[in-house]
Amino acid sequence: MKKLKLSISILMLTFVLVACGSVDKTTTTKNTSGNGNQKTEITGQNSSKYYKTVLKNGKYQVSKSRGVSTQQNSNNFNLKSFDKGMLDISKKVFSTDKYVFQEGQYISSERTQNWLGRYSKKNPSGLNPKKVKGKLVPEYIQQINEQDYLVPVGKNLSLGGMTIGIGVNSIYYYQKEQYGATYEKKLTNDQIKYQGKLAAQKILNRLRKNNKLKNIPIVFALYKQAPDDSLIGGNFYAYSVNKNGANKISSWNKVNQKKYVFPIADGEKSPNSNDASSFNEFKSQVQNYFPNLSGITAQAQYNDGALTGMHVNVNTQFYSQTEVTSFTQYLQTAAQKYLPANAPIDITVSSAQGVQSFLSRGSNDRSFTFHIFDSF
Amino acid sequence: MKKLKLSISILMLTFVLVACGSVDKTTTTKNTSGNGNQKTEITGQNSSKYYKTVLKNGKYQVSKSRGVSTQQNSNNFNLKSFDKGMLDISKKVFSTDKYVFQEGQYISSERTQNWLGRYSKKNPSGLNPKKVKGKLVPEYIQQINEQDYLVPVGKNLSLGGMTIGIGVNSIYYYQKEQYGATYEKKLTNDQIKYQGKLAAQKILNRLRKNNKLKNIPIVFALYKQAPDDSLIGGNFYAYSVNKNGANKISSWNKVNQKKYVFPIADGEKSPNSNDASSFNEFKSQVQNYFPNLSGITAQAQYNDGALTGMHVNVNTQFYSQTEVTSFTQYLQTAAQKYLPANAPIDITVSSAQGVQSFLSRGSNDRSFTFHIFDSF
Repeated sequence: MKKLKLSISILMLTFVLVACGSVDKTTTTKNTSGNGNQKTEITGQNSSKYYKTVLKNGKYQVSKSRGVSTQQNSNNFNLKSFDKGMLDISKKVFSTDKYVFQEGQYISSERTQNWLGRYSKKNPSGLNPKKVKGKLVPEYIQQINEQDYLVPVGKNLSLGGMTIGIGVNSIYYYQKEQYGATYEKKLTNDQIKYQGKLAAQKILNRLRKNNKLKNIPIVFALYKQAPDDSLIGGNFYAYSVNKNGANKISSWNKVNQKKYVFPIADGEKSPNSNDASSFNEFKSQVQNYFPNLSGITAQAQYNDGALTGMHVNVNTQFYSQTEVTSFTQYLQTAAQKYLPANAPIDITVSSAQGVQSFLSRGSNDRSFTFHIFDSF
Repeated sequence: MKKLKLSISILMLTFVLVACGSVDKTTTTKNTSGNGNQKTEITGQNSSKYYKTVLKNGKYQVSKSRGVSTQQNSNNFNLKSFDKGMLDISKKVFSTDKYVFQEGQYISSERTQNWLGRYSKKNPSGLNPKKVKGKLVPEYIQQINEQDYLVPVGKNLSLGGMTIGIGVNSIYYYQKEQYGATYEKKLTNDQIKYQGKLAAQKILNRLRKNNKLKNIPIVFALYKQAPDDSLIGGNFYAYSVNKNGANKISSWNKVNQKKYVFPIADGEKSPNSNDASSFNEFKSQVQNYFPNLSGITAQAQYNDGALTGMHVNVNTQFYSQTEVTSFTQYLQTAAQKYLPANAPIDITVSSAQGVQSFLSRGSNDRSFTFHIFDSF
């Protein structure tokens, strides 16, 4: 232990400039130990959008609970949007220019799986309520993820903060008998809110018992899982920042996030009639342009009522590479003309052979750029 | 017929500025006929890389032989690289700022299929040699594609040139009996060159018989098809520009194009030992970085011995969206450091769930930009 500490304390910090983009600078920071076989690097460009990340001995530090979230989500959208949303909430607390991202290194797979289980004599750390014979007791907590945020302290990288995401079911799926039919029980928003906050408080107490986590800020981000058949992920509904040493969660910040799939289905509420009709106009123009266009859908995200992003998916069959090119050029104009202004928008064009092209316009861009997946 | 001519001659040309990018201008040109139900639009941004294209009544004008090339190619790489390469050769003759691209409108599917067949009494226009009983007579001509290049003349768009691509087999695949085993016969480079040029001359004569094609420049581009199991498309080997009215092809320009798949297989020739070892270094660095990385390969294209482009494909399994993000950021630095400088390079990162991210650096860019396929 002493040897390890010594080894870490003599890490050397060297900055090597690898490449300069026109906008951002790429920096690789190497902390090399005295004996030369311990090496920490920071990789990534300076950006307000992305954290830099850590390499150890040239290797990516995967999560200590790697793979657990994959097992816990039947719907891949819940996985992607959960991870991404945790980063977005973390950015409110841990700025990308000061903190470096690291996959969770403190909560192991085994521990995560125990926490996600039901409470029982054999599993006293289970966050889900214990089984009661003859009664339907839902499981609420579906996934837990840890993200670490490091800061350079002198010549070392030191843990500067942590974000814990907790995914709470909106629907509890269960079988009455093994391999039997799957039944659904819809959970109320009150239950979802209460259970997420309850689990966060328990996890905070457990984490504070670890000396390394006693004095860091710990952020909790609560997420309502989307149903298994949803075409979009769930949404975050609250987060809480717990300063160094705090053992009790004293307050929660509301996250007003809503997600929609366009076109809006009959009878479903529209987030904003302008956006919905813009999308429909775009869709009908594009479907008129190209024969046999099979589908255009979009995911849209709203924060505090404002559109904060849209992912458009276009599926069709192409008969030549020139069709892909022309169609993409057409979309560039049509998207600018019909889709909502000011929000970042991506458009992915796919065929049975995979992604053919994509277009994107960032929040501050005036027009769409595109990329066509060519082949030599 | 007279009515149609009249209708076209009174087309009105109006320029509508739809959107301005920071670099390029988007222009939509509308040629609206007097009676209001005929409308030609030009879509696309001003660019040296891409032609603008034509819309008629808001619809894309698909090729008159749409789908034939798809049927003719077992290997999709031959389809993509053939179309793309025809555009590259066309750009040498028809500049993107003057000409507008249109899918071939003069050679129908039926005609193309007849031309691709064997010569026979029933099919006198077949470009492939007639069957001889008891003798193996290869089919040489595998695909034919037409691209039209239009120029604005007064208030109309008028055909200003045409490019015909001819794909010649490098291997003739045949069955000795229906549904039997497939045999291969490798064709010599001399055969490939001769047969491509022979077909071009025949096609030129046939096209000149059409009054509309009598007085336009017609370009022929000859392509050597890649084998069916190739991981990269074939290559163009010659092109010829035939000025207005010329009935005889008098000269061919050699195209010195070579394509390679990296890593170079044992015993195969490397285009350039620096590029091959750069790629290997990149591959080993990246495979060291990330656990269970399943594959990194690349397509590389050389013109006149110089690397003119590289498409890198990375395949792996990700367990979270943060892994995708970190890995992509790492690639941004590693690609800049290890991959050959000065050539345009794309990197596509895929998992079993499809494309996760991609990076790209254009010929004149100093560093890689990336895009991550997020989900809400």
